[in-house]
Amino acid sequence: MDLASLSTPSLILDHARFRKNVDRVYAKLLRHPGVSLRPHLKTVKSIDAAREIIRYGLNKATVSTLQEAEYFAENGVTDILYAVAAAPAKLDRIGRLIDAGVRMCVVVDDIGVARSVTEWARGRERPIGVMIEIDSDGHRSGVTPEDEKLIKIADALGAKEGVDFVGVMTHAGESYRCKTREAIADMAERERSGAVGAADRIRRAGIACNEVSVGSTPTFLFAKHLEGVTEARVGVAYLNDLTMTGLGVCGLEDIAISVLATIIGHQRDKNRIIVDAGWMALSSDCSAPSQRIFAGLGVVADIGGRIIPGLGVLSANQEHGIISSADGGALDFAGLPVGGRLRIYPNHACATAAAFREYKVVTSGDEVVATWSRCAGW
Amino acid sequence: MDLASLSTPSLILDHARFRKNVDRVYAKLLRHPGVSLRPHLKTVKSIDAAREIIRYGLNKATVSTLQEAEYFAENGVTDILYAVAAAPAKLDRIGRLIDAGVRMCVVVDDIGVARSVTEWARGRERPIGVMIEIDSDGHRSGVTPEDEKLIKIADALGAKEGVDFVGVMTHAGESYRCKTREAIADMAERERSGAVGAADRIRRAGIACNEVSVGSTPTFLFAKHLEGVTEARVGVAYLNDLTMTGLGVCGLEDIAISVLATIIGHQRDKNRIIVDAGWMALSSDCSAPSQRIFAGLGVVADIGGRIIPGLGVLSANQEHGIISSADGGALDFAGLPVGGRLRIYPNHACATAAAFREYKVVTSGDEVVATWSRCAGW
Repeated sequence: MDLASLSTPSLILDHARFRKNVDRVYAKLLRHPGVSLRPHLKTVKSIDAAREIIRYGLNKATVSTLQEAEYFAENGVTDILYAVAAAPAKLDRIGRLIDAGVRMCVVVDDIGVARSVTEWARGRERPIGVMIEIDSDGHRSGVTPEDEKLIKIADALGAKEGVDFVGVMTHAGESYRCKTREAIADMAERERSGAVGAADRIRRAGIACNEVSVGSTPTFLFAKHLEGVTEARVGVAYLNDLTMTGLGVCGLEDIAISVLATIIGHQRDKNRIIVDAGWMALSSDCSAPSQRIFAGLGVVADIGGRIIPGLGVLSANQEHGIISSADGGALDFAGLPVGGRLRIYPNHACATAAAFREYKVVTSGDEVVATWSRCAGW
Repeated sequence: MDLASLSTPSLILDHARFRKNVDRVYAKLLRHPGVSLRPHLKTVKSIDAAREIIRYGLNKATVSTLQEAEYFAENGVTDILYAVAAAPAKLDRIGRLIDAGVRMCVVVDDIGVARSVTEWARGRERPIGVMIEIDSDGHRSGVTPEDEKLIKIADALGAKEGVDFVGVMTHAGESYRCKTREAIADMAERERSGAVGAADRIRRAGIACNEVSVGSTPTFLFAKHLEGVTEARVGVAYLNDLTMTGLGVCGLEDIAISVLATIIGHQRDKNRIIVDAGWMALSSDCSAPSQRIFAGLGVVADIGGRIIPGLGVLSANQEHGIISSADGGALDFAGLPVGGRLRIYPNHACATAAAFREYKVVTSGDEVVATWSRCAGW
């Protein structure tokens, strides 16, 4: 099977780029002795991809849903952090994974939930791991390092039967709004110092706090040092996207996924080409609108993945993508015939990949060398 | 099973509202004698929903992907319009449905594709239906009613072996940008007259053109008359969403789907509540941004579906929704406890429903009375 004979739209993974991205994360990790990696698998959602990302045994991973946790556990991943604040109603489902031998860790930022977890865990044979989520950047969830609740929550969790209070974790999602690498490095330091400071406060209160987990793709890649940190999490770094390019985190040539589409129409009077990849395939999500490098849904390349300068998906309907030139220049309709194929690099890899149930993996050339499954849902 | 014990996020379908929406479409249809209905199933993507939408035998339906065509055909739908311009590479897959006894109709707006279809169809046992897509509003695809290509394409399709040239179809997608019901009615007339005018031109050229198919939810519901039209297509009308409310097409109380979410965090200092429904569950798509009634991802209701005035999902990450008050008023944290449940009405029903593999169907009260499957992918 080659790219010309695949059904469209299909999700293409460039294996050489993917491996280079994985290598880059490991190379950065070598600069931070004492820090281990817990890749966030919410982006790839694929055990085949995870096997290349988690190179030294299928252990530490991060997930965003319990469906991901179950999928990766069934496929041999043994140590999973569920990085979305736990709701008490989800504990029994998590407990089934723990009973099956998986080391599961949840995050909490609420004293009531911490008490619910402690109560639920009492008397259980295998402990549940718990981390306190720290708000290091005002982005979303967590308790601030200075919050008086921090010690109360740690106290509710520390040295309790059935609970393995592991430490603190944070995610500097605000790094997606940074304008320069220096700003990202500053955000990385804010993330690091916030998490380390929170851990130190807990320790000073006499409660053991071993792990300090940080991570976003931009902050991990541009952190100057990670003193006091024990674990880093990255997700989108393995695939990359136009948002990461806009942030200066990667080049266009590092984006490992694209959507293969077929040209289904010419609108010559409007200087537009219609393809069979709309928002259902491309996603309307733009993870950091302020960082867009193109005011649309994706950048257009030929079937070989080589970018066609100036061409982008301007807008989309459910199954129609509307391509034109960003600067209004006349399209080369003869070179882009109806029935021809294009590849579209997405704004947000996590969102675009989520529309598909599998990756078609290519190396150099057009041949599809593997099909990697993806999980979905909750 | 009731709403309090479902896993979250889940997609909830209010059956009473759905039936009322279906009834409304049929009531409008009665005002247009001679027009038959070909519901667009790209919104519901569910045979269970389709059985209530296509009341009098599982015949005429519209789809947006071949996967939908195959799914609905396997479940007994016999007459399917694939309403996205056909690519020649898709004909063999369409042919397998025709061979299985399904009446399949494709749309074309390109002379080259029309010739490819004719060539492909020659000698086949059962004919392929073909319609010419008319661009009645400059929205996306199609040939304009006056375009010289119109007759050339009709000539390439008319009276050809294996081809059943059915007629013309159009979709006034620009109706989603209208500001008033009068503007929608004007757009409906533009849609109708464009399609009827194109059919008349084809007939004057001596080519039979029986069907004139029009439709968008706004134009169908507010068309003053449909003289010369034989078929109408609507999709989102059965579920409705905030975009349709913003357009004045329906009320908030007519939105039949919502996303059930659990409150997983309080950010009291930021006046925010965090829920476990992010953009993965809600979708970032907003089908008509100019028609937003709320500058966010959804309007918030209690577990019974009753809207909590002023509350909305302001922003979202992959699995986190950030809820606050639209006017900055202080949230009632005590009334919205961590672990509690909310329902979120979406901007765009087609996009939000696409994140889920099933609907949890409720009538009055909290009990889930049925689970309706959905199809997905291509």
